[in-house]
Amino acid sequence: MKETTSAVLIIGNEILSGRTKDENVKYIALKLSKIGIKLAEVKIIPDIKEEIISSVNDLRKKYSYVFTTGGIGPTHDDITSESISKAFKVKYEIHKDAYKILEDYYPPGKLNEGRIKMTKMPRGAKLIKNSITVAPGFYIDNVYVLAGVPKIMQAMFIDLIKNLKSGDPIINITITTDLYESILAKSLEQIQKDFNNCEIGSYPYFNFERKIGGVNIVVSGKDKSYLNTVEKKIIAKINKLGGKVKQNNSL
Amino acid sequence: MKETTSAVLIIGNEILSGRTKDENVKYIALKLSKIGIKLAEVKIIPDIKEEIISSVNDLRKKYSYVFTTGGIGPTHDDITSESISKAFKVKYEIHKDAYKILEDYYPPGKLNEGRIKMTKMPRGAKLIKNSITVAPGFYIDNVYVLAGVPKIMQAMFIDLIKNLKSGDPIINITITTDLYESILAKSLEQIQKDFNNCEIGSYPYFNFERKIGGVNIVVSGKDKSYLNTVEKKIIAKINKLGGKVKQNNSL
Repeated sequence: MKETTSAVLIIGNEILSGRTKDENVKYIALKLSKIGIKLAEVKIIPDIKEEIISSVNDLRKKYSYVFTTGGIGPTHDDITSESISKAFKVKYEIHKDAYKILEDYYPPGKLNEGRIKMTKMPRGAKLIKNSITVAPGFYIDNVYVLAGVPKIMQAMFIDLIKNLKSGDPIINITITTDLYESILAKSLEQIQKDFNNCEIGSYPYFNFERKIGGVNIVVSGKDKSYLNTVEKKIIAKINKLGGKVKQNNSL
Repeated sequence: MKETTSAVLIIGNEILSGRTKDENVKYIALKLSKIGIKLAEVKIIPDIKEEIISSVNDLRKKYSYVFTTGGIGPTHDDITSESISKAFKVKYEIHKDAYKILEDYYPPGKLNEGRIKMTKMPRGAKLIKNSITVAPGFYIDNVYVLAGVPKIMQAMFIDLIKNLKSGDPIINITITTDLYESILAKSLEQIQKDFNNCEIGSYPYFNFERKIGGVNIVVSGKDKSYLNTVEKKIIAKINKLGGKVKQNNSL
């Protein structure tokens, strides 16, 4: 079975200027991991039409799903929906159902030009519900277009997730030890060679104040009993090398 | 004068799996902004050799500088240095000065295979000092190769920044108002049209519990007095529309 893959495209000058810290990658990554969709790439680009068009067209061909965040609000710098219409070469127009949602929500006379702009989407787009501030996201083909504000993005993600073709969840087992990475390097390399149906990642941690450190070893894959075998091998090796297993979270 | 541009390439399965939240983009973005180097793109990719090679080769041609983070440790999953050697088609070999640094640091007999691996770099690389855990980063041509652990990455960045050709700092002025984005949209669009030597960004904020919200308007550019003129225009417009300017941070 071909693996289901995805990319996240973050559209926002505010991330690239350092003004705002991205909060969306980790949320989406964890959600996708749970339903067995691999997040293969993240790209952060500015609010520039040509950049959005070329990135969307590149990513949507490469991956099963693309999730964009940002740039769907009412102001002049919100150009995501228009750019995605251009990427798909379809008309950028008012989506009737989106218009109805906003018309019902706002008091008479308050559906101003900016708000109407938020109902404009590529022709053929389907809506993604926004339970927070009402103005919906949308998807067209395999491209899901979400707000940038984390709480709104999350509400939209909860709504769209039912549409995704999921696979077996990706299981991560974390083994934490006080041994330094370099001590374990050779053994981990050998275990990875012997068990290539999982991924073994090694992430050092340091407590610079207390001058201690060690490594988090993460074993990832889809077969729980296989991962448990690998976990036991690693723990045995840590013990043999005189290290302690400090914590053993099976997530 | 041609603008100095840059890209950040984050190499790490742990970010794409959602296990770890990236802490490096914002740090680098703010540092670059201060010295007038535009961060034009960020890409997050897995620890896969071909991905690293093609991303590095793509980005180093497009931008003045590329900063990579992650994958320069002692374990089997640390493949950044080797991949960058391949990208530049040069030998991947022990860097004598890096070797000397580690040899001096560790007690006799403790410079094991994993640690020696951290001294292997593309031929011709120049070292970037690591004042935290000693093993250096490096740069080759316009590609700067840094650790993934934020504290170590930051120490390396402080060392390398002196090599960068900087420009005029990018100045950001933030105007916060209680008016909603959609009320301001038309006016902001007009001001952006009239003053196209700056960028006007509009970022809504919400306090969902207190049911209040508004917008942060960020005016960015390099000419302080020009930005102040735009700032005054925007504040006048907010007042005219019945909004309050809640805060006015000139950074």
